[in-house]
Amino acid sequence: MKTINVELEHNAYPVYLGHGLLSDSSLWRKHLATGKTLIVSNDVVAPLYLDVLRGALNGIDQEIHIIPDGEPMKTVETWYGIVDSLIAMQARRDANIIALGGGVVGDISGFAAASYMRGIRFLQAPTTLLAQVDASVGGKTGINHKQGKNLVGAFHQPAAVVVDTATLATLSAREFNAGLAEVVKYGAIRDPRFFSWMEDNAAKISDREEASLNYLIYRSIMNKAEIVAEDEKEAGVRALLNFGHSFGHALEAETGYSEFLHGEAVAIGMVTASRLSEARGLCEPGTTGRISELLTRFGLPVSMPAQTEMSGLLSALQLDKKAVATGLRLVLLEAIGQSIVDSNSKQNDVVNAIEQSLGSKQAST
Amino acid sequence: MKTINVELEHNAYPVYLGHGLLSDSSLWRKHLATGKTLIVSNDVVAPLYLDVLRGALNGIDQEIHIIPDGEPMKTVETWYGIVDSLIAMQARRDANIIALGGGVVGDISGFAAASYMRGIRFLQAPTTLLAQVDASVGGKTGINHKQGKNLVGAFHQPAAVVVDTATLATLSAREFNAGLAEVVKYGAIRDPRFFSWMEDNAAKISDREEASLNYLIYRSIMNKAEIVAEDEKEAGVRALLNFGHSFGHALEAETGYSEFLHGEAVAIGMVTASRLSEARGLCEPGTTGRISELLTRFGLPVSMPAQTEMSGLLSALQLDKKAVATGLRLVLLEAIGQSIVDSNSKQNDVVNAIEQSLGSKQAST
Repeated sequence: MKTINVELEHNAYPVYLGHGLLSDSSLWRKHLATGKTLIVSNDVVAPLYLDVLRGALNGIDQEIHIIPDGEPMKTVETWYGIVDSLIAMQARRDANIIALGGGVVGDISGFAAASYMRGIRFLQAPTTLLAQVDASVGGKTGINHKQGKNLVGAFHQPAAVVVDTATLATLSAREFNAGLAEVVKYGAIRDPRFFSWMEDNAAKISDREEASLNYLIYRSIMNKAEIVAEDEKEAGVRALLNFGHSFGHALEAETGYSEFLHGEAVAIGMVTASRLSEARGLCEPGTTGRISELLTRFGLPVSMPAQTEMSGLLSALQLDKKAVATGLRLVLLEAIGQSIVDSNSKQNDVVNAIEQSLGSKQAST
Repeated sequence: MKTINVELEHNAYPVYLGHGLLSDSSLWRKHLATGKTLIVSNDVVAPLYLDVLRGALNGIDQEIHIIPDGEPMKTVETWYGIVDSLIAMQARRDANIIALGGGVVGDISGFAAASYMRGIRFLQAPTTLLAQVDASVGGKTGINHKQGKNLVGAFHQPAAVVVDTATLATLSAREFNAGLAEVVKYGAIRDPRFFSWMEDNAAKISDREEASLNYLIYRSIMNKAEIVAEDEKEAGVRALLNFGHSFGHALEAETGYSEFLHGEAVAIGMVTASRLSEARGLCEPGTTGRISELLTRFGLPVSMPAQTEMSGLLSALQLDKKAVATGLRLVLLEAIGQSIVDSNSKQNDVVNAIEQSLGSKQAST
């Protein structure tokens, strides 16, 4: 078992990484508050891993709340359903929520933990690669609004994150690959050696070879933890984590959150942002090619559906949290491993980059 | 104008107190973030004071969101309606919410500010005595659930609080008196000199004599600010502010949040808690009499409707945030001006105290 401490300004919490940790009873008991525990999971993950977790929590007063799988469930109604369960079980301020599942389960139950009685203890057991390398570290919680992703939420740091790599065995190739998009992101924005390592080991990674996978997750969490420690509330450097996300979120909104997994949309968004960086002369030619090639080797899409509405994308971009009133702020690349927040893109530059992302799709079909 | 600084661990904010401050344009401009501003108010306050505030904000990009008056509006739907307005106006992270109204407007728009894009700037212009002396200081925001008050919410400190005492001129006697309940509370739990001053000046206070009113509000905010500074997240001493609130909340829940104003329920709750303290031998006989008499002089109820269901009250008490899994925690008095958090009341003690609160009603009708 490896332990990564996420060092925040006012508190710190551990991320435990290892095979079979879900069943580590003493680990859980070390971090649970004294009150009742609500386990939140979804109808895909629960049949696979709920019993393992419940076994580890034997003797602890616990209830279960299962939601349907999928991003379309990340709504105000689903969140309030968790609140209803907490009230029905008479959970008090000393209660816990354990999120067992992917990013949706984590985000939505995290927001329930943040808002129930103004905050109860929250623990995470991420079971997808995406949640393990990204969503479970950093304290962002939230729900989607029909107008955009994560428009409602809170910063609420977990008391502990338990990453059980055994849960990846049952993850579909599509979900696994979607998680790799965020891993590629860490390389692209701040860790060029990690990016090169992925280029050299893409086949092993795709095969989920154990040692490679452990290193990949560890290095990803380290990158995320370092950034979050530096900027808990996204006032500065943390914004770099949004590389590819402005375009990605816009694409997800425009396609009704149903066509792409988050990581897939981010993959396309990163290629679009990189293309914009190249066109602006910020990074050397070929940068987009390297990113696009690695993502493709990881089975990820790198272009938007040809029929995507430009006007819808531009409208969604305006509402993105990364935007500010004075202009469109985007994370752009100066090189593989070096990124900046930039507000100097002209609308025309943005439109051109998107059009090329549409065009490459047309070229490939 | 007086300024009281609320000194928190990680930030501080000012409470401005004075006559006519709503129209103080420079005061507002000093604290607004650079983005758009949403003013949230209700249909009673808006016709009286919205134009005054808008005049002060002349030239600032602003929108208005009006909700119906009253505690029953403090719902998840009303909160989400404010979120919808923020999205419709394309508010971003640099946006502001100004709450113009009483506690309901403040709590619900505070939760909107806490949760929209994980937190935007929040400013308060409390227009009721209750909101001025209590709700606007301390950062508690939230909404009610049908099972209990403020079960969902967040701690979200305002950037500034602007208390314009001129707005009290239009406050009904009933609303004004309800605010006095929380003022009496400060005296009862920690400020015996203030309590005695109120006993000596009850008539002037009820007449809203300006100097008395200014002192009353100032001293109340000072009391609240000192407690909040000591214990921002209600881990310790801040719990004392809940004196009378466990019983009060239970009574409000049992009567469907429609029969009593919050302050009225708290008045009854304080008398009940004091009676329990006396019966337990924690404070000297006569303590309840002094509290009850002062509240009565302020036109406040001190007993529950005779038909109130004991079983409903006890059930509501169990779910109160102040409860913990191991027993009923209550704020009790050792004297006027000295309070403790106590978990040693037997259910029988609690039932007896409630029965006497019911009985005194029967005796008085």
